[in-house]
Amino acid sequence: MEKQAFAGVMAPVLTPFGKDLRPDGAKLAQFCKSLLAEGCTALSPFGTNSEANSMGVEERIQLLEQIVASGVDPSKLMPGTGSSALTDAVRATRHAVEKGCGGVLLLPPFYYKNMSDDGFFRFFAEVIERVGDQRLKVYLYHIPPQTIQGISHDLIERLINAYPNNVVGIKDSSGDWKNTEAMLKRFPGFGIFAGSEDFLLVNMRAGGVGCITATGNVNARMIRKLYDGWKQPNADQSQAEISAIRKTIQRHPMIPAMKSLRAAWTGDANWLNVRPPFLPLTMAQGKALAADVAKLGLTQPEMVPAE
Amino acid sequence: MEKQAFAGVMAPVLTPFGKDLRPDGAKLAQFCKSLLAEGCTALSPFGTNSEANSMGVEERIQLLEQIVASGVDPSKLMPGTGSSALTDAVRATRHAVEKGCGGVLLLPPFYYKNMSDDGFFRFFAEVIERVGDQRLKVYLYHIPPQTIQGISHDLIERLINAYPNNVVGIKDSSGDWKNTEAMLKRFPGFGIFAGSEDFLLVNMRAGGVGCITATGNVNARMIRKLYDGWKQPNADQSQAEISAIRKTIQRHPMIPAMKSLRAAWTGDANWLNVRPPFLPLTMAQGKALAADVAKLGLTQPEMVPAE
Repeated sequence: MEKQAFAGVMAPVLTPFGKDLRPDGAKLAQFCKSLLAEGCTALSPFGTNSEANSMGVEERIQLLEQIVASGVDPSKLMPGTGSSALTDAVRATRHAVEKGCGGVLLLPPFYYKNMSDDGFFRFFAEVIERVGDQRLKVYLYHIPPQTIQGISHDLIERLINAYPNNVVGIKDSSGDWKNTEAMLKRFPGFGIFAGSEDFLLVNMRAGGVGCITATGNVNARMIRKLYDGWKQPNADQSQAEISAIRKTIQRHPMIPAMKSLRAAWTGDANWLNVRPPFLPLTMAQGKALAADVAKLGLTQPEMVPAE
Repeated sequence: MEKQAFAGVMAPVLTPFGKDLRPDGAKLAQFCKSLLAEGCTALSPFGTNSEANSMGVEERIQLLEQIVASGVDPSKLMPGTGSSALTDAVRATRHAVEKGCGGVLLLPPFYYKNMSDDGFFRFFAEVIERVGDQRLKVYLYHIPPQTIQGISHDLIERLINAYPNNVVGIKDSSGDWKNTEAMLKRFPGFGIFAGSEDFLLVNMRAGGVGCITATGNVNARMIRKLYDGWKQPNADQSQAEISAIRKTIQRHPMIPAMKSLRAAWTGDANWLNVRPPFLPLTMAQGKALAADVAKLGLTQPEMVPAE
């Protein structure tokens, strides 16, 4: 097993859109820098909460170009490069490797259901072999709430055995701690990220490497504090505090809610824009949410460079 | 409601791939001509059984170019143009309209689950308005086995009311006749296709316009015969016969099975190629399947032009 390239607190970076719903690459690049300043140890652009699957492969490639060109260290980037389309997954993955990204987050071919492990193995193997680069570090993306069919433990074992240099970790967004726990026991040394900060403390205690979490987009500072201090006596209290903030944000759909918070904090109404099938919240809703989370200790990050 | 552009028996056209899994456009164009000769009234390239979602938008656009350039009448084409990516759905839909296609088959944004009808409405509305062409005829693609979240009847009503010139029909691949029946009652004049020939007769009797069915790729002649003769006294017998053939094919996964049949019939082993997560059958399996369906009356089509 490879030494882990990633650990800590990562955000699936929100994608800012203009009023015409075109992605704003300059703003995204700046936002990546902000998140690293706010406490993220690394970033996963083009995750589910980035609305990655609402964008075409060329849009995502163009955005990654802009992020890297802006000066963000590509070794700190784990872009989502998955697609049901084999050719798109290969193209995005190859591009990420060529740009020097530390890893990629790879979805299964999510249009398809009730596929065999053999079929899923063949998909991941084709992507890895077509990219054909020892620098490629794949983090599998297990997210059954979106893909319905997830990534079985037997499949993980086969992939690790076949590509020990390439298949190095997983993001578990099942929301099922028992699944994470079973992987931690079965695959020691595998880079296992919880898919939500709700499981950060328990994941660290059981040998996990951190979390890749939506709310890293708004609450990186407090989540990072727990990550850095997970062995401290107040860790359970910290966990309860950040989970309470997440619960408050989740009273709205997650993506529009987080965007409305950034809009309220920055005064930039374009942060409200979301692609369909999501619906935007209003600036007033963002301000109300900002007031609610402020009561729980989450206020506008101070370290944000001017956006 | 617009006069229906499509009716009868349509196939979601299988996509031939080379050994390197690149789509073979010339072979696809020829295959479209074969299917029209075999009995299909029209064709739906880039449906689920075309492995459309295993291809990128540029691959699909290139293939449609080749089909139309080969001389297939574009008014007989209803390509699938859906994607979770708004921009890809718009690009493919606009291209289909520009090529003169009689309609498009449009999936909901399938990566997303538990979306509101408002969100799905916004997605379809954005596609229709961004294409902004009165020639656009949308057939909604209701296929909950793949997308999990389907298209509700209230949403259909909203779309018909908002875009009466554009939203003209639906393919119901739910496998739930009660759903089809309820739509037929609620939306008279709407172009309602069954998603399987198993429901062809009952759909015609209840006012539907035909079926768009996977097995149109191998059994167009017999299915067309039932469509043409659905008022004849032997219609129930014909329905039983074609359903028995479908059942035999479905002993294998549908796409590899149909490709193996075409491979067995033509002797062309490249017909076996499927993109992952599908797994190919062997030529021997194709020959065995061909023998099994031959006993049920399905033999190699005689009218196929040389492939």
